[in-house]
Amino acid sequence: MRIAVLGTGMVGRALAGRLAELGHDLRMGTRDPERTRTRDEGFAEWVADHPAVRLATFAHAAVAADVVVNASGGGVTVEVLTAAGAGNLAGKVLVDVSNPFDFSEGFPPGLFVKDSDSLGEQVQRAFPEARVVKTLNTLNADLMVHPDHLPAESTVFLSGDDAAAKETVAGLLREMGHTDILDLGDISTARGTEMYLPLWLRAMGALGTAAFNIKVVR
Amino acid sequence: MRIAVLGTGMVGRALAGRLAELGHDLRMGTRDPERTRTRDEGFAEWVADHPAVRLATFAHAAVAADVVVNASGGGVTVEVLTAAGAGNLAGKVLVDVSNPFDFSEGFPPGLFVKDSDSLGEQVQRAFPEARVVKTLNTLNADLMVHPDHLPAESTVFLSGDDAAAKETVAGLLREMGHTDILDLGDISTARGTEMYLPLWLRAMGALGTAAFNIKVVR
Repeated sequence: MRIAVLGTGMVGRALAGRLAELGHDLRMGTRDPERTRTRDEGFAEWVADHPAVRLATFAHAAVAADVVVNASGGGVTVEVLTAAGAGNLAGKVLVDVSNPFDFSEGFPPGLFVKDSDSLGEQVQRAFPEARVVKTLNTLNADLMVHPDHLPAESTVFLSGDDAAAKETVAGLLREMGHTDILDLGDISTARGTEMYLPLWLRAMGALGTAAFNIKVVR
Repeated sequence: MRIAVLGTGMVGRALAGRLAELGHDLRMGTRDPERTRTRDEGFAEWVADHPAVRLATFAHAAVAADVVVNASGGGVTVEVLTAAGAGNLAGKVLVDVSNPFDFSEGFPPGLFVKDSDSLGEQVQRAFPEARVVKTLNTLNADLMVHPDHLPAESTVFLSGDDAAAKETVAGLLREMGHTDILDLGDISTARGTEMYLPLWLRAMGALGTAAFNIKVVR
């Protein structure tokens, strides 16, 4: 599958690296490829380790992709997707793994959208022709792509209005090792997974590690 | 232990019934005991099945208790605790299992306090001499008191400023069968468990049952 991962931080690197390893055709989108290549901490080394992943502008990465993954920070997500181009996202599966963190009051962050709206819904409204699927925003970058790093099965969630898009994303999740995938319903259910993050942050504080995830026991 | 459970709904009945069964001295608080006895749906039958549980006003229930459990709805919690009497709560362990649900826009409800504050913190501020412990607000009434009704271990959380009060509550949780009890930290961490409820509500919708809980896999 031709996949564009927008964002070159920890989450973008984890997803792009793993999806390329699984045999997908990967482009990684960034604002300024030359700047990312030369200035971003550790990126040159990361690229050297992942020769199959090609770096491109947001728009160049998105235009050729079947699936676009938003791995940018929640605060810049709409801006990044706008740079990718609404036309380049139209009809595409748009996987949103971001969270609407608001760090203006320090740590732990609050959420800049919640309860009566969500970032997933904002993205769907801003790009109505994209087939938005919210997922993977409930666990850290390593566990997103290696759920087997935990000692037992845990759960990931899907939210989106397009059933076929959710099935495509579920397939990618299964390829990465996810076995318990819970479809919560339409994109408004992203309110649920985004509002879980305040609990995730406190659990991380209590456990002293981000290497955990929840399993829905039923 | 002398325990007062404030509230006679599903949650209050589950907690009072189970804690009495475990040998605790139980009083159940309500606004108007005579009215509850004669008017509340199913309550006469419930009382007949639980002769050890005595019905009293909020204040009479609280005054003699070592531990007071707030099992009233989030929207009336501060009002109920005010009726119980700040003096009757002073120095006591006050277990808050409520959630700040706002049903004004229908179902699923939103939260009337979130993110920069929580109902747990509001209760602690309103009753500064009470030793507030937020817990059990992340699962349904049956699983609160019978976690063994699930096929595998799941997690419950503690939030509170008073370590000894949390240890008292952890003891009661263990008596009811909880084996994975995660202390998140001070009462502000109640923001985490309260904000998890929007995910709980969507998971309930997707699963078609409230008979589930999360396990923190680590």
